Amino acid sequence: MRYSRMLIPTVKEVPADAEIPSHQLMIRAGLMRKLASGTYTYLPLGWRSLLKVINIVREEMNKAGAQEILMPAVQPIELWQKTGRDVDYGPTMAKFTDRHGRENVLAPTAEEVVTNLAAGEINSYKQLPMNIYQISFKFRDEFRPRFGVLRSREFIMKDAYSFHADAKSLDETYRLMYETYCRIFKRCGLEYVIVEAESGEMGGSGSHQFTIPSESGEDIIVYTEDSSYAANIEKAAVDALPKQKPLANPSKPEKVETKNIGSIEAVCAFLKTLPKDMIKTLIYADGNNVIATLIRGDHDLNPEKLAQVLGGKTANLADEATIEKVTGAKVGFAGPIGLAEKTDKIIIDYAVAAMAVGVTGANKTDYHIKNVVPGRDFPLKGDNVIVADIRNAVEGDMHNGKKLLFKHGIEVGQVFKLGAKYSEKLGAKFLDEAGQEKPCVMGCYGIGINRIIASAIEAGNDENGIIFPISIAPFEVIVTCVNQDDKEVVDTAEKIYRQLLDKGIDVLLDDRDLRGGVKFKDADLLGIPVRITVGSKSVAQGNVEIKLRRESQNQKVSIKEAADKTIELVNSLKKQLNC
Amino acid sequence: MRYSRMLIPTVKEVPADAEIPSHQLMIRAGLMRKLASGTYTYLPLGWRSLLKVINIVREEMNKAGAQEILMPAVQPIELWQKTGRDVDYGPTMAKFTDRHGRENVLAPTAEEVVTNLAAGEINSYKQLPMNIYQISFKFRDEFRPRFGVLRSREFIMKDAYSFHADAKSLDETYRLMYETYCRIFKRCGLEYVIVEAESGEMGGSGSHQFTIPSESGEDIIVYTEDSSYAANIEKAAVDALPKQKPLANPSKPEKVETKNIGSIEAVCAFLKTLPKDMIKTLIYADGNNVIATLIRGDHDLNPEKLAQVLGGKTANLADEATIEKVTGAKVGFAGPIGLAEKTDKIIIDYAVAAMAVGVTGANKTDYHIKNVVPGRDFPLKGDNVIVADIRNAVEGDMHNGKKLLFKHGIEVGQVFKLGAKYSEKLGAKFLDEAGQEKPCVMGCYGIGINRIIASAIEAGNDENGIIFPISIAPFEVIVTCVNQDDKEVVDTAEKIYRQLLDKGIDVLLDDRDLRGGVKFKDADLLGIPVRITVGSKSVAQGNVEIKLRRESQNQKVSIKEAADKTIELVNSLKKQLNC
Repeated sequence: MRYSRMLIPTVKEVPADAEIPSHQLMIRAGLMRKLASGTYTYLPLGWRSLLKVINIVREEMNKAGAQEILMPAVQPIELWQKTGRDVDYGPTMAKFTDRHGRENVLAPTAEEVVTNLAAGEINSYKQLPMNIYQISFKFRDEFRPRFGVLRSREFIMKDAYSFHADAKSLDETYRLMYETYCRIFKRCGLEYVIVEAESGEMGGSGSHQFTIPSESGEDIIVYTEDSSYAANIEKAAVDALPKQKPLANPSKPEKVETKNIGSIEAVCAFLKTLPKDMIKTLIYADGNNVIATLIRGDHDLNPEKLAQVLGGKTANLADEATIEKVTGAKVGFAGPIGLAEKTDKIIIDYAVAAMAVGVTGANKTDYHIKNVVPGRDFPLKGDNVIVADIRNAVEGDMHNGKKLLFKHGIEVGQVFKLGAKYSEKLGAKFLDEAGQEKPCVMGCYGIGINRIIASAIEAGNDENGIIFPISIAPFEVIVTCVNQDDKEVVDTAEKIYRQLLDKGIDVLLDDRDLRGGVKFKDADLLGIPVRITVGSKSVAQGNVEIKLRRESQNQKVSIKEAADKTIELVNSLKKQLNC
Repeated sequence: MRYSRMLIPTVKEVPADAEIPSHQLMIRAGLMRKLASGTYTYLPLGWRSLLKVINIVREEMNKAGAQEILMPAVQPIELWQKTGRDVDYGPTMAKFTDRHGRENVLAPTAEEVVTNLAAGEINSYKQLPMNIYQISFKFRDEFRPRFGVLRSREFIMKDAYSFHADAKSLDETYRLMYETYCRIFKRCGLEYVIVEAESGEMGGSGSHQFTIPSESGEDIIVYTEDSSYAANIEKAAVDALPKQKPLANPSKPEKVETKNIGSIEAVCAFLKTLPKDMIKTLIYADGNNVIATLIRGDHDLNPEKLAQVLGGKTANLADEATIEKVTGAKVGFAGPIGLAEKTDKIIIDYAVAAMAVGVTGANKTDYHIKNVVPGRDFPLKGDNVIVADIRNAVEGDMHNGKKLLFKHGIEVGQVFKLGAKYSEKLGAKFLDEAGQEKPCVMGCYGIGINRIIASAIEAGNDENGIIFPISIAPFEVIVTCVNQDDKEVVDTAEKIYRQLLDKGIDVLLDDRDLRGGVKFKDADLLGIPVRITVGSKSVAQGNVEIKLRRESQNQKVSIKEAADKTIELVNSLKKQLNC
């Protein structure tokens, strides 16, 4: 392709809403333009990169025996009502009523439709296992779209769904998909880490997340230094804290007035204590059941862990009226003393159970209690008392005796063992060898196509622009013709360009009538891995210069050898990525 | 691929709502399944075919210098309000309000977004011409989805948009796209006809439609036997009819009571006359202007032709109140006598102007008038009288002295000269060589990807199933292993399958544990162009049989030569399609 004939609108200005490198660079390099909040038009270069990612994903999925299909993006809400996920997704799921009054959703994912399909087409164990996938338009009406394509509303997702006769078969395909994902991300040039994950609203029994470590990422990875353990923050299990040394002469609990002081910070300031010495009491409701949870003031409750303790059920924070009824106090003054009798269940985080003494709400409006000793002033055992890990890991926590470390990351893929949750609700059943009807065991496997580009840019950039992995760069090579007025230079650039094209290299010829400096800047900004510089001086000496985007040094090569040398370089870069 | 590992759910039953061959066969051959009214899941074979079409379209568009991009499918309604097309599309355009209260549309097409993009990125004539396209999800909430993917709600469209400094440049790209479309449809194995078309709600000055003749098509093509003229029914211009011989003794107009008899049919029955001898008077409104139109009782008014006469403006039928006010009678009794004075314009179809005498409404409720002589009883000339071609062509009509013929067809593509309609409204301007600001001149070019599959099936099928063109068939070759219990047969089939795979042939091995007869039936139903039959008898003789789906005869080939012979056949079939 010729640069002069392409729409590559590079810009110097960074849009005000672009907070992270990938967002800034995707706009600056002319890969995409914003249409509305969270929606982007992919311009020719951005789309070329996306297509390359799509092709890698497609190749590897096909190699793994998965079959590509395409499901509608507009889906009848009835299917979502069968699983209750129309409610779970809430306002994140876009809905519209069509001209015949039927309600539809814009698919945020496709478990319901694919399971409905399986219900119609799968009858016998002989058809299993089956793994089907699509690469298609998805829409999630994010409350706050940001970070460019990292949290956009419209995106392209590869979503695969496998159907099995039993858990063993699921395990095999899950493993195969896990390995396929490793190959995909490797080929895309991404340095990924794999972490244990909660399956969240997907349901199911096991999950791994493929994450690209990056400061810009919204996910938090928790890992041990020896890499023996890694999980996302929703999943990361922490060791119980060692029991603090009991106070020698523990004082009696003492009620103190804290008028209009409800927040942890305000109470700490007023009582001159620290959040780590406070006990937070959060009241949850699960239908008619009221559940009290206790965590330390400096900790965050982890809803996924809480759901695990509750047998997989997600509980929601109780409403104000319920809280006031249970505690007898306004919101902000709940505390554990006497609460076990008033609630159906009390779940105490390990860290609270380990405290020697703490400050809590008094279950009386405008009052807190000091000198509360867990085990003395409220029970740590009992029929409805559970001590468990229900908080997010923090600095200082351990896992199996090893110190936990933290970093941010971008989730680019996740694999889930779903079990029979969807197949039971949507009737995807089969007859087993004994002629017995059973629900299919399912797995599902997602990849955010657009995020692969963004995370590659987060991982590969410098002050001059993008540094693309060769497999997903919009072009493999750019031939920069430094002087359009020098016929010999132009002819040489054209010749090398033609030679590379003939050999199947994906090459861009910068034939614009602009100064060399501008062209170099753009080549760097675009991040094309190999640049061939064709300038008057070196051409007069029979040479051109070859430079890798990721390196600073030029290499002089004779004009005659330029194409061959370039092809060698391209092949070696690809080989590094198993491409 | 192995048939036993693929989801190819062939069925005998034809769904009740499948009225035409392509719809029936796409379900029966397991290419797709219905999700909801007008939406379909493409199963592995259907999606393989679609991907092949997409690749052909992409290759040819790229060769023509068009640049691929991807625009959001969810678009802010504000852009559509700028062109007024939010109203034009009416309920066909799906809309939804997002969680922040903003109204969005599901793109039925993308002129607004692409022109808005151009407004931001195009500044100078140096950037022109530019031709950008996408291949993407579209949604149109059709009132009555039917005929499978011929009139579905969700579909894949290739939509290209070109931007130009002047009409000459548009003409060049228009021509190039026209030729590109010829290559695309040829490669897809479609026998297309190109007809002049109206640009309809797209606006603009010129259009051609690419149509596949088919009884199942909803479009009507009008053409002369010598092929010197072809247009769709909306566009087809007819010669003025020869003036009928005036009556020797024309009677005076005579009012007759036709109480409660308003329709053409009822009046004809009552007055014992024929529709062709009636004059229909239809009252249109264009803002405050009232326009009367006269056409023969057996003719249909053509809204596009009427719009042309009105200078490109689409007029709508007047409401009841306006009609009653203008005619002084209830709807059903309008007539031309005295109407020229009461309306702003009266447009008389050629065929009415040619009548010697006719029956019309009396502009009096429950009355018609007999013996009405055009030119005597109402004027054929005058300041506000226009005689023009405003009806659909019918059997018997001529074009430039040549008889018009009619056939049904399926529109698979259309090219439009849009002019500056969108660029003016959305501010897509550029500075010309003289530094003057001008709106871009635009063209647009659409292809219905899914319809290509359906129309190929409409054109290629027999009582046994689909007969796919090789370029878009889900597989090029099927190896039918007739006897899975005969090791030699199985080994031979596997060997040939491997040989073909190694040579890059797209081959399906039917390795299912089923009788040969079932496999032959499925192979025919799927429409795979080349079948290699590996059976016990012929293998014992060192042979296999090769058969083209479109021919009835087998060809015996030695096992050794089978792969080479097949490759030869595949290449020859592809060559016929310029593939």
